[in-house]
Amino acid sequence: MDVTVSEVGPRDGLQSIKRTLPTADKLRWIAALAQAGLREIEVGSFVSPKVLPQMADCAEVVAQARTIPNLRVVALVPNLRYATMAFEAGTHVVTIPVSVSEPHSIANIRKNHPEIIAEVAAIVALRRERFPDIRVETSLSTAFGCTIQGIVPEDDVLRMAASMVEAGSDTINLADTVGYANPAQVKRLFTRLRAEVGDKTGGAHLHNTRGQGLANVVAALDAGITTFDSSQGGIGGCPYAPGATGNIVTEDLVFLLESMGLDTGIDLDRLIAARAILAEALPGEALYGHVPAAGLPKGFTPAAHVAGRMA
Amino acid sequence: MDVTVSEVGPRDGLQSIKRTLPTADKLRWIAALAQAGLREIEVGSFVSPKVLPQMADCAEVVAQARTIPNLRVVALVPNLRYATMAFEAGTHVVTIPVSVSEPHSIANIRKNHPEIIAEVAAIVALRRERFPDIRVETSLSTAFGCTIQGIVPEDDVLRMAASMVEAGSDTINLADTVGYANPAQVKRLFTRLRAEVGDKTGGAHLHNTRGQGLANVVAALDAGITTFDSSQGGIGGCPYAPGATGNIVTEDLVFLLESMGLDTGIDLDRLIAARAILAEALPGEALYGHVPAAGLPKGFTPAAHVAGRMA
Repeated sequence: MDVTVSEVGPRDGLQSIKRTLPTADKLRWIAALAQAGLREIEVGSFVSPKVLPQMADCAEVVAQARTIPNLRVVALVPNLRYATMAFEAGTHVVTIPVSVSEPHSIANIRKNHPEIIAEVAAIVALRRERFPDIRVETSLSTAFGCTIQGIVPEDDVLRMAASMVEAGSDTINLADTVGYANPAQVKRLFTRLRAEVGDKTGGAHLHNTRGQGLANVVAALDAGITTFDSSQGGIGGCPYAPGATGNIVTEDLVFLLESMGLDTGIDLDRLIAARAILAEALPGEALYGHVPAAGLPKGFTPAAHVAGRMA
Repeated sequence: MDVTVSEVGPRDGLQSIKRTLPTADKLRWIAALAQAGLREIEVGSFVSPKVLPQMADCAEVVAQARTIPNLRVVALVPNLRYATMAFEAGTHVVTIPVSVSEPHSIANIRKNHPEIIAEVAAIVALRRERFPDIRVETSLSTAFGCTIQGIVPEDDVLRMAASMVEAGSDTINLADTVGYANPAQVKRLFTRLRAEVGDKTGGAHLHNTRGQGLANVVAALDAGITTFDSSQGGIGGCPYAPGATGNIVTEDLVFLLESMGLDTGIDLDRLIAARAILAEALPGEALYGHVPAAGLPKGFTPAAHVAGRMA
């Protein structure tokens, strides 16, 4: 595999949809995604069930998802208390959202920068003591701009990335939380991130709010990034109008990568079959994506099957 | 200006919509686009009014559009007969579609390759003789793949580009007619085109059928391309399903370029105002685009206004 597509639909997607998908449907969908070749899925958030009742079954989803062979099970955690629950549930990877915009951090999780840095350090300490096999990732949200603060200086992003390394984070991802990023910025900032944190450089979590999602993927690829978050059907927010999706669409992302000759390990036909499960389980919910509608080009060959290439 | 956005909505967009937009509405829309800063607009096709009644007023539209200051008026012509009409109407630029896929050429305009090459040469001869100030562009359609032929070899594209230079074409554009292109291919093929035809290298006409339109723009920019076709509201074909647009959306393209720091000369607010004319004139017609729905980011600055830059 050349590139890892990390499916975030069961977490970022479902938590943006008001109704709760029954646990059995979540698991059926996750199993179908794994069957399509996805090797990393963010299956839920450990958060207050009062705030996000859609995620109340996260421990059970993690436990079941862990039984799927060759699947890295990721869960989002906002603090030490929920990280403990995620560790005990058997999550392979926890990801902690850390806003580079301090006003966003305070509005979102009521923590200023020193507080969230201390929280990450505490989670890493717990991991070291009791759960040494679990990876701790941090995801720098609002890294490309913020609806509250507006412009987020690149130096602030780099400084926060360095703080995360110091706090013991294994991997630092950059997230375009509100869809402000442009390709020039994405290429520049990921290049600087790699220079700053080296092999702790993580993936790109890009949104398609302004239609720039896949354009930004191309820029991140140019900067050497090889892990990309996306959600099936682009679920995870239609904050404005039909077509103005949140997350980039897994189906269109996989098509982009495979057609560029980058092996994702994902079978597009099976991926589109998994979409049917979602459509059936969430009747009336808008699912996005161009490739599911338009189909594959005549003569299309997945990257792994291109002649002369070792699959 | 760093980059030219060439609006093709009045031609590629309107000819894909069954009903005919009244001439006065077309002109009102074209004027609003020019007012927003667009400097090049493909205002129509000179073709049989039996085949495309929407384009029957093309000579009148050209004549009126010519009165707008600083606007390059482009029209599509399929052959010498219609090129003569376009020249006589006062078009500044004619663009001739030439399919690299011969089966597509035969299906589309009932001409094989030698016949279309001869047609281009005849149009150039007429231009030389009677209309020396008019530019003749050729647009190599199916350059990135074809729904009939499937894969289109890159060598075929380069060979056709060389034939166009030989036939006297001033500029050679590449078109992803059916939305098959990927960024790796776009970068490679435009790089080869520049090596082959030098300063006769034209622009990119990219479609968004599989959601890859702006990703392909980034790749073309990387290859040094500075002219991009697009249509307001992405009109010009929803061949499959809602959201599966044809042309890339001018609004999203301009946002992409401006946010990358590339001056397009276009005012995004005025551009979105022009969209209202289209929405009013074509009630019920789907208009696409993320930026018109999501709005501009907080703190967004057009390229020409970035501090330290000469506007």
